[in-house]
Amino acid sequence: MNTNTTAQIISTTELLAHWQGHRSLTRRVIEAFPEKELFEYSIGGMRTFSGMVMELLGIGGPGIKEIATGNIGELNEHFEGINTKEQLLQLWDEASNIINTYWEQIPEEKFGEEITIFGQYKGSTWSTIFYFIDNEIHHRGEAYVYLRSMGITPPFFYERP
Amino acid sequence: MNTNTTAQIISTTELLAHWQGHRSLTRRVIEAFPEKELFEYSIGGMRTFSGMVMELLGIGGPGIKEIATGNIGELNEHFEGINTKEQLLQLWDEASNIINTYWEQIPEEKFGEEITIFGQYKGSTWSTIFYFIDNEIHHRGEAYVYLRSMGITPPFFYERP
Repeated sequence: MNTNTTAQIISTTELLAHWQGHRSLTRRVIEAFPEKELFEYSIGGMRTFSGMVMELLGIGGPGIKEIATGNIGELNEHFEGINTKEQLLQLWDEASNIINTYWEQIPEEKFGEEITIFGQYKGSTWSTIFYFIDNEIHHRGEAYVYLRSMGITPPFFYERP
Repeated sequence: MNTNTTAQIISTTELLAHWQGHRSLTRRVIEAFPEKELFEYSIGGMRTFSGMVMELLGIGGPGIKEIATGNIGELNEHFEGINTKEQLLQLWDEASNIINTYWEQIPEEKFGEEITIFGQYKGSTWSTIFYFIDNEIHHRGEAYVYLRSMGITPPFFYERP
């Protein structure tokens, strides 16, 4: 942990807003997919974008809840019975709310501490949360190619929200 | 700017290492492309991956130098005469060194200040740097689809370096 008496280079509130800005963009990328292609389209043997979104749903909300409460959960990236865009968007919004709710309960000092998320992955709290965000950006970037290959213009990367 | 007397949620040193970890992965993604496809292959009318890498080269090193020195430069995303993977990797390594060199000259207090990068884009220092990193992750995600569509397995996203 790095102690200092000057300034945070980024505050926890700013980091949350940064992530929620990304989540808002990811939501618009989900919306940009035609419903059928969201669940069926893929390139090069990769997962469908709905499959990637389910991974993100398994990580974001549950991960922040676990960091806040200390209750270790198992990583679950599969959601049974989800086969419409509307269901996926609803889960996305619920996860965004869960993140807001539990984020407030993570004390600033916790960010420098070592944790083992989902009982499996070791890292600091900040690096774990950065992984959640980076992983979302990564898969959303993949989704941009899916959309472009279908002739659909994705939302601007820099518009958040 | 947020003053406090406790802990940084992430230090400037940690943020640099985080980015350089990403840069190392991006380097391996450049390497994973066959030379011809690096400069010619694209999907859905998008840029080639070398074109995207040139954008990243125009942003990363020059951006950090500008933040450190205060000398406003113009955004240049085009590099004439670069047509081999080796040249691109050399520019990538030079940029990684420039980032390390100038990063040290950015005082911690600067991260909360508002800047206008390349004389055009307003934001805090931290949000500007996060944009550089996020944009790299985004385009690299796109490159993963290019590779997969050619039957090439990209490096693991979570291995950095």
